Amino acid sequence: MNTSLYPQFSFDIQVQDLESRARCGLISTPHGTVETPNFIFCATKGAMKALRMDMVKQTGAQIILSNTYHLMLSPGADLVEKMGGLHTFMNWNGPLFTDSGGFQIFSLGHGSIASEIKGNRMQKSSRSLLKINEQGANFKSYLDGRQHLLTPEKSIEVQMKLGADLIVVLDECTPFHVDKAYTERSMEMSHRWALRSLEEFKRRSKDTQALYGIIQGGVYEDLRKASTGFVNEHPFFGHAIGGSLGASKQQMADVIGMTAPLLVRDRPIHLLGIGGISDIFEGVSMGIDTFDCVHPTRLARHGGALVQPHLLPEDKKTSSREHLNLRNASYTEDSDPIDPSCPCYTCQNLSRAYLHYLLKARELVALELLTLHNITFMVRLMMAIREGIKQKTLPSLRKEWCH
Amino acid sequence: MNTSLYPQFSFDIQVQDLESRARCGLISTPHGTVETPNFIFCATKGAMKALRMDMVKQTGAQIILSNTYHLMLSPGADLVEKMGGLHTFMNWNGPLFTDSGGFQIFSLGHGSIASEIKGNRMQKSSRSLLKINEQGANFKSYLDGRQHLLTPEKSIEVQMKLGADLIVVLDECTPFHVDKAYTERSMEMSHRWALRSLEEFKRRSKDTQALYGIIQGGVYEDLRKASTGFVNEHPFFGHAIGGSLGASKQQMADVIGMTAPLLVRDRPIHLLGIGGISDIFEGVSMGIDTFDCVHPTRLARHGGALVQPHLLPEDKKTSSREHLNLRNASYTEDSDPIDPSCPCYTCQNLSRAYLHYLLKARELVALELLTLHNITFMVRLMMAIREGIKQKTLPSLRKEWCH
Repeated sequence: MNTSLYPQFSFDIQVQDLESRARCGLISTPHGTVETPNFIFCATKGAMKALRMDMVKQTGAQIILSNTYHLMLSPGADLVEKMGGLHTFMNWNGPLFTDSGGFQIFSLGHGSIASEIKGNRMQKSSRSLLKINEQGANFKSYLDGRQHLLTPEKSIEVQMKLGADLIVVLDECTPFHVDKAYTERSMEMSHRWALRSLEEFKRRSKDTQALYGIIQGGVYEDLRKASTGFVNEHPFFGHAIGGSLGASKQQMADVIGMTAPLLVRDRPIHLLGIGGISDIFEGVSMGIDTFDCVHPTRLARHGGALVQPHLLPEDKKTSSREHLNLRNASYTEDSDPIDPSCPCYTCQNLSRAYLHYLLKARELVALELLTLHNITFMVRLMMAIREGIKQKTLPSLRKEWCH
Repeated sequence: MNTSLYPQFSFDIQVQDLESRARCGLISTPHGTVETPNFIFCATKGAMKALRMDMVKQTGAQIILSNTYHLMLSPGADLVEKMGGLHTFMNWNGPLFTDSGGFQIFSLGHGSIASEIKGNRMQKSSRSLLKINEQGANFKSYLDGRQHLLTPEKSIEVQMKLGADLIVVLDECTPFHVDKAYTERSMEMSHRWALRSLEEFKRRSKDTQALYGIIQGGVYEDLRKASTGFVNEHPFFGHAIGGSLGASKQQMADVIGMTAPLLVRDRPIHLLGIGGISDIFEGVSMGIDTFDCVHPTRLARHGGALVQPHLLPEDKKTSSREHLNLRNASYTEDSDPIDPSCPCYTCQNLSRAYLHYLLKARELVALELLTLHNITFMVRLMMAIREGIKQKTLPSLRKEWCH
């Protein structure tokens, strides 16, 4: 790490597991410290959708992520800057991450974000994306149809106006279904964009933000190796593994396995867009320090409550399910809380029957109550993982939390 | 008051204003005490829609109301009873009020509830109501089309299963547009229903609930007088002024004026369905002890923030508006809070610009944040009114809070 570029930031590894690549560390930022491994909750548009920021904080959540793409379109980076920056605007005074907008541009060109990155879907759609070329990405706003040009420099400018602690270079996020030649050309352009991002960052930096590089290369080992070499050679504060992680859990593990071990050890490693419980255990054991995903909060808004396997209904105990579907009629008269051991307001005060009823009656507060539970669940999971690394109990812990 | 019927309840008048009928009192219930005058917030279906119950409590709100009609249809009184009663089910451990279902039956027969009771609308609709007769009201569930019969006895039975502290006799709530003959016949039937409610109450009472009678009689002075005489003569714990309150603020004041002064002074008086700021001042000065209305919380869900007149935009300062419409584009760059003097989380931490943006972006948390503010506003209003009565400053206080 080039410390002169990030004088107010540090990443300190405190414990290294000897039987895996798992490690515990501390990312220090001007807005506080993040214990790793940790999960970054998505406040996509500058709000946690169903939950107040002080409540997010009270769960023990240490860091959240907002989306450059959404915020640049509305309310706009200039307005956020005028209002004192994103921390002040949304009242989150802890560490904050913004992505570069690249992920969303990709989805405009290639289809639904989440399903695509995980390789579930092959659909093409380019209604909003006009053109990607060396300069950047031209696209139309989904809000008012106005045309925007997102360049590496513009992404850095916008992220500096938003003011997040951790920011990311602009990349083209390649999907699952494109061929190796496309993936390689795209990766090389992303590397050139990364250098432009870095230059713009250096030109504008006021030392209050730290820049992550992104590793591309799809599912191809030689490309991942090349991309890993590229980020290692440049003074990024941290590294994010992006692009296609393949079509299966095994392929995801393969991609992480061909990437993470080659990254310099003294920078934090983020895995973009992954949030399943078993995926997190897999990632942690391979050296990932932070994860982000809309999964826990989006699942909550669909009536899903994250639980450990022993709380699943009998017929789901051997499935890959990691949550209770509280919309299910089987909870109509269930007077138990989601999880009696969970300290959140929802579990301490309310029954599954009440939550089931609220969901059925479409009472808004149900979404808040489940969001609170799922964030609390993830906070406890990450705390248990950190403790497991320190106590060398990660393998048995994994059995407790996953099938 | 027949104290033997309500051994765990009391109403104590502490201060009587000498220049109006306004008074301060205390309603004691098994779940705590309500300082009057006070406002009862509507948790219609057993939830405050956008706000957790502990947050409602933290604002200083002392009592809430749920609807018998909605809860008997879903999740059903038996389920709520099985889950430990409504207090436990929704985690509200303070005083709780349930209505009788009469108001909703009325709306099935005569059209939209709120507009109708205030005389704004003449539309008829009877898709769901099948028949009202001496026995009770036959109607179809809006949820599944199943037929239900709500009798006075059934309403008491349901309200006892729900377990609210303060419950109400079943009445037929007559609308604005029916003639005097209908209003009179209906009132007389409501009186017979009230006696049946009282009998059922006595038969089932476990001393943990107290029963309110309802005064009907529409806008007709002789009918209101007759109905007032009726409730005074029977051992109700409190009295609720129901039915049509006319088509204007003046007519509402007239109806209260021909009713409240005739009611026995030692029982609390509730005014059903009224929640405007100036209406509350009017009601308080005429002797009303409690109010309920969906207005503050519904307004919040439509982007309206209650404020004192001095905070209104210049062009609204002389209107009858009592709120800011935060959807308005004029708040796009407004870095002020809704009200810097308000202690709620929303006002202490967030700008009008952020709230405007959240509403525009349809972020759910906006509804929570505004609900919290509006409840806090009403709590502060009622606290100021109680203080104003004690300090004999009610008239000047009214000028501060109303146009």
